[in-house]
Amino acid sequence: MEKVSDRRRFLKNGAVLAGLAVGAARAAGGETLESEATEIRPKDLHAYGERSRFENSIRTGSLGTWPQLTSPPDYHKDFGFRTPLQDSIGILTPAPLHYIVSHGYEPPDIDPHEHHLLIHGMVDHPLLFTLEDLRRLPSVTRTHFVECNGNSAPTGPTGAIRRGPNANAQDTHGLTSCSVWTGIPTSLLLKQAGVQAGAKWIIAEGAEKGKHSKSIPIEKALDDMFIAYGQNGEAIRPEQGYPLRLLVPGWEGINNVKWLRRIKVVDEPVMAMRETTKYPSLRLDGKARWFQSQLGPKSVITRPSGGQKLSGPGFYEISGLAWSGGGAITKIEVSTDGGRNWKIAEVQGPTYPKAHTRFGFAWEWDGTETLLQSRATDDQGEVQPTVAEIAEFWRVKPDFFQTTDTVVGHFNAIQPWKVNRDGSIQNAMNF
Amino acid sequence: MEKVSDRRRFLKNGAVLAGLAVGAARAAGGETLESEATEIRPKDLHAYGERSRFENSIRTGSLGTWPQLTSPPDYHKDFGFRTPLQDSIGILTPAPLHYIVSHGYEPPDIDPHEHHLLIHGMVDHPLLFTLEDLRRLPSVTRTHFVECNGNSAPTGPTGAIRRGPNANAQDTHGLTSCSVWTGIPTSLLLKQAGVQAGAKWIIAEGAEKGKHSKSIPIEKALDDMFIAYGQNGEAIRPEQGYPLRLLVPGWEGINNVKWLRRIKVVDEPVMAMRETTKYPSLRLDGKARWFQSQLGPKSVITRPSGGQKLSGPGFYEISGLAWSGGGAITKIEVSTDGGRNWKIAEVQGPTYPKAHTRFGFAWEWDGTETLLQSRATDDQGEVQPTVAEIAEFWRVKPDFFQTTDTVVGHFNAIQPWKVNRDGSIQNAMNF
Repeated sequence: MEKVSDRRRFLKNGAVLAGLAVGAARAAGGETLESEATEIRPKDLHAYGERSRFENSIRTGSLGTWPQLTSPPDYHKDFGFRTPLQDSIGILTPAPLHYIVSHGYEPPDIDPHEHHLLIHGMVDHPLLFTLEDLRRLPSVTRTHFVECNGNSAPTGPTGAIRRGPNANAQDTHGLTSCSVWTGIPTSLLLKQAGVQAGAKWIIAEGAEKGKHSKSIPIEKALDDMFIAYGQNGEAIRPEQGYPLRLLVPGWEGINNVKWLRRIKVVDEPVMAMRETTKYPSLRLDGKARWFQSQLGPKSVITRPSGGQKLSGPGFYEISGLAWSGGGAITKIEVSTDGGRNWKIAEVQGPTYPKAHTRFGFAWEWDGTETLLQSRATDDQGEVQPTVAEIAEFWRVKPDFFQTTDTVVGHFNAIQPWKVNRDGSIQNAMNF
Repeated sequence: MEKVSDRRRFLKNGAVLAGLAVGAARAAGGETLESEATEIRPKDLHAYGERSRFENSIRTGSLGTWPQLTSPPDYHKDFGFRTPLQDSIGILTPAPLHYIVSHGYEPPDIDPHEHHLLIHGMVDHPLLFTLEDLRRLPSVTRTHFVECNGNSAPTGPTGAIRRGPNANAQDTHGLTSCSVWTGIPTSLLLKQAGVQAGAKWIIAEGAEKGKHSKSIPIEKALDDMFIAYGQNGEAIRPEQGYPLRLLVPGWEGINNVKWLRRIKVVDEPVMAMRETTKYPSLRLDGKARWFQSQLGPKSVITRPSGGQKLSGPGFYEISGLAWSGGGAITKIEVSTDGGRNWKIAEVQGPTYPKAHTRFGFAWEWDGTETLLQSRATDDQGEVQPTVAEIAEFWRVKPDFFQTTDTVVGHFNAIQPWKVNRDGSIQNAMNF
């Protein structure tokens, strides 16, 4: 979709941008132009640069905020660090700010020259690859989000923060990130190995101390899954699985096995811990929904969003991110009046399936209190639901989400931000 | 173009990948899988990460390799640091490795809260923007290369290195980089300011001590030019113009004014130093070609390339980058036999106009000495030339390029890499 109408709206309304016009005399004199070089930066920044010292956007989170497993003692440390989506520009997440969820110790310190990838199990020819071997093969480069299935959940240990009025976009939605990933299609390696009759799943295993493994249907492995060594034009960062990780586009983050060392072809899933205890969705009847992998459509306005402040009435482009595990985002609607009216937002192309998609919506703030909301639709026709609709799906009342201790995964409700009269923005998730 | 045939070729030839097949017994035992966690990483890497300590790709270059201007003393320090293209993955250049060419001191240490952008000159309403003002406007996000007009020149102070057998892709072509840039179209700001009749050029000026300025035709400013504040999903890095730079897609790097503080609308170019002394192309008759801005089609094989070594005969994907200031790359051909035969390479999509484009070509090395070359064609129909064709254009003999001290800009000749019998790769640029 073109950005023309946004620009036209700005041109029409531009005069209301506060403090924008300058007296010609002042401009001609140039007295306002004082920023210039004052400090010599260290020489080694020529070899490998750093961001400006004035940029201080960081991941936030903590170690051990989630329930600890006690056997073996101190073995698993679950922790999550969130991407500062409120500062995001475009659709890519800088690698140093990619979210981290880890069930185990810190990232392993892997020497890539000593790392191998093994393809084995129900195959005719087990294969062992060094990193150099993989770099010789035809690669693909794809833009994809990776998202924790618990992202934006109003429940569980971080639910109270996420529901609170002071939550920002990092608190509410920071367990998703989007990168350009480069690697080798899993289908290529599996075909080379020769998958045997009766093979139905693959088990991917990481090299970290916890040896996280995940069972994935072989159909997905032969579809768009790949083994990534590159992230945003360089080697994958340690927190994202250096030197190799699985990329399972559109599926829960837990599938995208980091520090990948082994893919075993099998006839049934292994039912490892993450498949049987925490990641299945527990139903009210006591049964669990297992292997619910594909993430639904979701969106969040990142600017203006919780914790930010409008400097006064006037023109603002409302900017946000939308994504879906089902495919491409085809429609994003924005409401600036508490949900009475929804208008089509403009998509900032190019767009990619199973990737963050940036949208923009021209808005003139009149200084009154209001709500800002966005709603995404994907190319499967699935529409981002309200809290009430999610509650109905789970056959609970909406206030259930305020009381349960369980993380309700796949929570993709519409996110409302409240604009106060003083321009401050607050979380207004309504249960 | 699809990658299918590359993959098929790999599947057909895969067995020749050295050291790839594994004995089933060894695989089942898993004795080869030793890489795992051994070291705890510092805690602050949770807030803002770093690359693995095993990754050591850096920019190379030096301060003051180019002729110094002596008046005022020590005022201008020309220096260049090159992107390690031989290590590139996909099309994006990580921000810490984006090439740097600077005519002046180190990057200024600008506080974004004190930085302004002024639009003035032949406009009805001079405008002054803070960074926050700009962030309120409708933005665009585009993938573009920025390239120095002297990139890959075999002449000038670094010509001898570039011509030598030990040059790698960083030495030969490292003054180009590609990023995802986010910013505000210049056309939007100029329309808002109201361009007066008779205005034909804009002058863009940086905030650094040297106050580099550049005159650009207003047609380009109203076309695809934009004022960027974002690079690869975060604020532009200091070496690339933090907090604002001009993005002039497809044109010589010198136009992409960094640390941008001012755009003046005028009726004729200012004829600043970079327009009158160094950047025009000197002709043999003593006249100079001024304002030659758009860069032609160029390509380079990055893997395998100079300084790398093939581990033995077998399958290799030849991988490289192609780009053109004229628009999109429409065809890339590869020759693996010294230029006798040229075959179509596969483009690794998605592709963007005026951006690096990744190509791949399935190759089976038989262990003999040979030459690898690539040739790009853009959507204007322009074809990357041979050295002989460039010499003919300049009306010189090819060996002229070995003797002149002047940087011959826009040198986009086909780059040959020589494969020796021992698998080592050398620069084979032929004059």
